[in-house]
Amino acid sequence: MFSWRIGGSISRSVYRRTLTMATTGRKYRVVNNPTVYVGTFIHSPRDDARRLDICEAGAIGVNPDGVIEFVERNVDALDAVLDKHPAFKNADVVRTQPGGTQFFFPGFIDTHIHAPQYPNAGVFGSTTLLDWLNKYTFPTEASFSSLAVARANYSRCVARTLANGTTTAAYYATIHVPATNLLADICSAAGQRAFVGRMCMDHRGLNPDYYRDETADESVANTCLCIDHIKSIDPAYELVSPIITPRFAPSCTEELLTKLGNLARETNLPVQTHIDENHGEIQLVRELFPDHGSYAELYHACGLLMPKMILGHAIHLTDREMELIRDSGSKIAHCPVSNSALTSGGAKVRWLLDCGITVGLGTDVSGGFSVSMLETVRSTALVSRHVAMTDGEAAKLSVEESLYLGTRGGAKVVGLEDKIGGFEVGMEWDAQLIGLEMVQKEDVGEEKVEFAAEEVLDAVAFDSCRGAGPVDVFGWESWEDRVAKWVYNGDDRNTLAVWVKGQKVWSR
Amino acid sequence: MFSWRIGGSISRSVYRRTLTMATTGRKYRVVNNPTVYVGTFIHSPRDDARRLDICEAGAIGVNPDGVIEFVERNVDALDAVLDKHPAFKNADVVRTQPGGTQFFFPGFIDTHIHAPQYPNAGVFGSTTLLDWLNKYTFPTEASFSSLAVARANYSRCVARTLANGTTTAAYYATIHVPATNLLADICSAAGQRAFVGRMCMDHRGLNPDYYRDETADESVANTCLCIDHIKSIDPAYELVSPIITPRFAPSCTEELLTKLGNLARETNLPVQTHIDENHGEIQLVRELFPDHGSYAELYHACGLLMPKMILGHAIHLTDREMELIRDSGSKIAHCPVSNSALTSGGAKVRWLLDCGITVGLGTDVSGGFSVSMLETVRSTALVSRHVAMTDGEAAKLSVEESLYLGTRGGAKVVGLEDKIGGFEVGMEWDAQLIGLEMVQKEDVGEEKVEFAAEEVLDAVAFDSCRGAGPVDVFGWESWEDRVAKWVYNGDDRNTLAVWVKGQKVWSR
Repeated sequence: MFSWRIGGSISRSVYRRTLTMATTGRKYRVVNNPTVYVGTFIHSPRDDARRLDICEAGAIGVNPDGVIEFVERNVDALDAVLDKHPAFKNADVVRTQPGGTQFFFPGFIDTHIHAPQYPNAGVFGSTTLLDWLNKYTFPTEASFSSLAVARANYSRCVARTLANGTTTAAYYATIHVPATNLLADICSAAGQRAFVGRMCMDHRGLNPDYYRDETADESVANTCLCIDHIKSIDPAYELVSPIITPRFAPSCTEELLTKLGNLARETNLPVQTHIDENHGEIQLVRELFPDHGSYAELYHACGLLMPKMILGHAIHLTDREMELIRDSGSKIAHCPVSNSALTSGGAKVRWLLDCGITVGLGTDVSGGFSVSMLETVRSTALVSRHVAMTDGEAAKLSVEESLYLGTRGGAKVVGLEDKIGGFEVGMEWDAQLIGLEMVQKEDVGEEKVEFAAEEVLDAVAFDSCRGAGPVDVFGWESWEDRVAKWVYNGDDRNTLAVWVKGQKVWSR
Repeated sequence: MFSWRIGGSISRSVYRRTLTMATTGRKYRVVNNPTVYVGTFIHSPRDDARRLDICEAGAIGVNPDGVIEFVERNVDALDAVLDKHPAFKNADVVRTQPGGTQFFFPGFIDTHIHAPQYPNAGVFGSTTLLDWLNKYTFPTEASFSSLAVARANYSRCVARTLANGTTTAAYYATIHVPATNLLADICSAAGQRAFVGRMCMDHRGLNPDYYRDETADESVANTCLCIDHIKSIDPAYELVSPIITPRFAPSCTEELLTKLGNLARETNLPVQTHIDENHGEIQLVRELFPDHGSYAELYHACGLLMPKMILGHAIHLTDREMELIRDSGSKIAHCPVSNSALTSGGAKVRWLLDCGITVGLGTDVSGGFSVSMLETVRSTALVSRHVAMTDGEAAKLSVEESLYLGTRGGAKVVGLEDKIGGFEVGMEWDAQLIGLEMVQKEDVGEEKVEFAAEEVLDAVAFDSCRGAGPVDVFGWESWEDRVAKWVYNGDDRNTLAVWVKGQKVWSR
């Protein structure tokens, strides 16, 4: 185990915190029955964001470790498939309902979400980033000094994200070691793949006195305590991994940023932070760090730009910053719901992609008001249209491209593109079963030219809305149309079941 | 009854259509038990969009005709209220659940929705207005020549809008008289307040041969058939009213626009159409009508700008057009979901309001992908933030202002501001009961510093998500926070019941 003594001596308060580590002893290990998933599956091809790969009659075999052992297409008879793969002779079988309303889809990958802010979802008024932090965010996060508060709120957040098909989340937690460890425990217990980052923020200027790290060394040491804890519950980081998390430049001293860059290199762990979200924030960075030409140059100087870095937002990048990010292999978490809500700006995602930068999507709860990655996919398409209104048609992202960013793109952002984000042999079964409503109608027989007064309403079509999911399919739609209907009108009611690494972790 | 012979002789095809009128004989008349609605109600003050009027302990008495007879505040005991209003001694009582998760709110007023396009909701690809019409919209609308198609689709559309709390809708139908009459019948049968407009479109250039009016006279005559039908089922237009509906300038000859302007004046009926939605459309209007300086000047010359005119979109108005609209007293239906989806532009709603123009909201299904007025309210706030990104902070619309536009604003747009949109004595009870989720938690007793492995997850908080509505309340939120949570994360699951004119027309 690497040392948590990196960065200097351990203060008394840190030591006390080691005694309040949330739990110990549970090691992540799940063994499932081998399972064959039969029916329609849809995912993005690995290297083509412009179209969906739609397999109407497929069979996917998932072994006890949650790894996909085969993907068969054009399946007429399941028996023939099982003959070909004898290890699955006695496998469980999970089928999509026939009739064209159900399909398997990869689980969503939320590359940027603040778990402790979930209680505030939807509460942001007319604020923008910096006043939003002080008014809503810091007080809420500070309350996670209570482990009871953390337990209820984190449990709810993980349930809500799972219910919305988020199989992997890159979480920002709070500064509190016990609560952050508890979040890792909860993800492990609930079976959600997660990156869990203890929030690092030691700057005396921007952060409130009631909620910050005392020193850079304490911040690093406490981060190491969280790393140790996650290592103790999931030694190979199979499901839950630590992630080094400097909040953002205005919350951190240059000393802390540099030490966290060093920690990332020593541990080879991923890193996440924010960049270029808001004009006021960018101006503040310029004032706080006058020796650096830009936000990205500061991070670069601190050794934080690297392939395992996930940068949230990146709305107002200069060309020079884009080049630094691209050349370092850093990734970007695009958070369109948040960027609209906090009036931060419209990120130029097409430009980032054309520049060769890897982009995934993040809900950014609670700058973003919704835990739903489906809403984030929808918002990706819509916000790109607002960008297109000023920058031209090419900026538009299609439904297919937005879904790619929410699955394949996100997998690349968190460095798991060979494990999750699509259905391929050797990858793991992180998936959701999607179900839409086929509209039922009364049979009126031959074409009528008149209805009696009591017949004007089609009572079946009318009443079958009650309790139904939100997406209506009438039967004429192509699979592409059905997916578009899901993206634009769907919600958690359409996510009937969720699996992570082969384990069923949620069902309605 | 005014004549449907306005505008000239009736063609053979029109005559045939009179035989296929959907139904006759049912007259709208509903008598309810007197009812007292007790508990929390929230609405916008009549003339202040910036705040909500929140009454935690209220009682509203609604008489058998659906009219509000009293509004009492600070109610301690219902008996005292009933003593004061003896006509309600034996009234039914409907209460909001205590605990701060339920409230009565005015029903939404959708000032612009294309009912026949509902099956296409979410299917628009990357099109913009003019190619969207040809690719998706005209073919779908043409299929409403079948009354069976119309019956099922319109029934579903009315059910979905009611389920989302839309108590009043200004519907665009199709060119077909029987199907349009059937839509009016369905609204009447389902109890939804509606304006039902037969689509008028006689231009040989833009409209497809398979879907248009043959002549201006036929268009007017068929419109009159629909007016007659609605008059026959609802003589006083108590619930359902006709609305004169030229599709939009590029679909109509100047002859038709002028005749429909005359018809509006003769009948004193409302009118609805589109204006300045898309740059290509505006250019087309310029080419088709070179004698008129602008879109609004064309409508003005045809006598269509008047207080009862509802103009959809109005995104790209010139100053001159704004003045014409304002001076004529015409109203605007803002359709933000559609405007983002079809990349039409961001309407400058703050500017319109500051100019003194009346604005309401419309879903514009299926240019807009959602039948939900709540989503339209949300999108009003979000799109205003995108406008603010270029035009400055003042363009932002708050949650309160967006809700005002969806209720009080819409009521003014459809000319019913003295009947609906708020809870006042003399107005009618068009309302929805909203319910949010209070997050349940395990009781962990005193503050813990450690949890056993099997205790890390709060199973109550986790599992109570299942089947729950989408809006979580934790208990600390003000009513304003709760309303904001509803606006940003709510959906039809939060609309527990819906009343129109005192009649309960939907419940989950």
